[in-house]
Amino acid sequence: MRDPTENAELALLLEVASTPKPGNVDRARDHPGLRFEHFLAGAVGARRGLADAADGDPVGAAFEAAVEGMSHQSGGNTQFGALLLLTPLVRAAGMGHCDPDGASAVVADTTVADAAGFYRAFEHVDVAVDEPPAGTAAPDVRLGAEAVPELERRGLTLADVMAESAATDGVAAEWTGGFPRTFEAATRLVAAEGPVTDRAARVYLELLAGEVDTFVRTQHDRETAEEVTERAAAALAGAADPADLAEEFVERGINPGTTADITAGALFVALERGLGV
Amino acid sequence: MRDPTENAELALLLEVASTPKPGNVDRARDHPGLRFEHFLAGAVGARRGLADAADGDPVGAAFEAAVEGMSHQSGGNTQFGALLLLTPLVRAAGMGHCDPDGASAVVADTTVADAAGFYRAFEHVDVAVDEPPAGTAAPDVRLGAEAVPELERRGLTLADVMAESAATDGVAAEWTGGFPRTFEAATRLVAAEGPVTDRAARVYLELLAGEVDTFVRTQHDRETAEEVTERAAAALAGAADPADLAEEFVERGINPGTTADITAGALFVALERGLGV
Repeated sequence: MRDPTENAELALLLEVASTPKPGNVDRARDHPGLRFEHFLAGAVGARRGLADAADGDPVGAAFEAAVEGMSHQSGGNTQFGALLLLTPLVRAAGMGHCDPDGASAVVADTTVADAAGFYRAFEHVDVAVDEPPAGTAAPDVRLGAEAVPELERRGLTLADVMAESAATDGVAAEWTGGFPRTFEAATRLVAAEGPVTDRAARVYLELLAGEVDTFVRTQHDRETAEEVTERAAAALAGAADPADLAEEFVERGINPGTTADITAGALFVALERGLGV
Repeated sequence: MRDPTENAELALLLEVASTPKPGNVDRARDHPGLRFEHFLAGAVGARRGLADAADGDPVGAAFEAAVEGMSHQSGGNTQFGALLLLTPLVRAAGMGHCDPDGASAVVADTTVADAAGFYRAFEHVDVAVDEPPAGTAAPDVRLGAEAVPELERRGLTLADVMAESAATDGVAAEWTGGFPRTFEAATRLVAAEGPVTDRAARVYLELLAGEVDTFVRTQHDRETAEEVTERAAAALAGAADPADLAEEFVERGINPGTTADITAGALFVALERGLGV
């Protein structure tokens, strides 16, 4: 059967194929300049870095390799956040421990060199990030490799860097908290019935209704992010059509990318647990 | 940039994502029991065998490995014909000769062991094939591995087996003729403009209008296959909507699979020639 590398690549593909996923590129919707085909090429290119993680390479280097491979398409940033979430999970799965403890152990074992790999990854693709919030102790990610001397001087590991962003970034919060939303969503994916992409679209909506998407909050504001959460809850409750919501969010430039990242991570865990395609 | 293995996997993904491709599963259409997600898993699973071909493994063994990997999904046969077309092309690309001469040299070099790998591949997935036509000299593919003693006794190479089927199977005809339709379609893919999946949908329709699809002829009859060719030509000429044709073909169970296989092969060649995604 499929190994962790293959399941991770397939998770990326199933995530983008799942529809409707309001606000994100999916099987039925492109964004201007960012199309379905860019995500296909991103997933294919990321596989080598994911294989490095499964084979036991350091998380930071494997992540950087995955992002570099992902970047060989003209759409820009397709799966940066999803790869950041997947890399420690794939590393844990490669060791036979694809569970919260195993993933947390991978996080705890990260080093300053892993942090350096994370910062270097920003050089391969243009990631939409803001000014770091006042009081942030970790270097600005926009520095890329230039941040490495400071990381080394201060002895900051990748776990330290993620802990610093956990309050403002949903993927970082998963890293520091034992990946709770990822594993819970995986359980729901396995328990559901029907085509995998229908299950994933449902779980995406549940995740979106459950917590504010931090990428929307960063790109827009808190009010917009809270509105998105409420609208997703209404769609889940049957009070709105998720397909209409998808059209509206794309039109308004609302892109709940963090929720899509967690959906990809959950698909990986579910595939590792035997979810059949 | 992407290597031949990655380009081959991406070609499989871009082929299935291209829409409308009347009669085939595509980004907008599933068949009953054969869904888009099965093709995603098929492409991910096939990559290991494609990598074997790029690394110089014998074509028959690489093809069998690709089909075995492809089979790890519940939809059944997703990309058997496409992999049969891709394997010698990937092997040629791995040697730096992704052109008609290079591919023909790979075909000419096939052995009896390659033929055995081809027959063994039929054991991994249920391929829709009919009784062999009267007078066919090669063993019935439905024998699978049981055909190997006969192949060995008669010294039949994979090139011999393909030559035997060239009159009735469009993929075999590519093998024996220097892959003419594949390379011509690749040239048109590179020369076209716009998203890759739009280019591929157009080239699929041109291929369908250009020659009878042998899979349709085998599954239905000559009249149906000729009707499909005429209808595709009408759609190309603007006299019919390809999307309507897609709906109708799916309803009638008309699946021009050989034309999709050649589209996947052409996408691979185009990517090797620098077509950007």
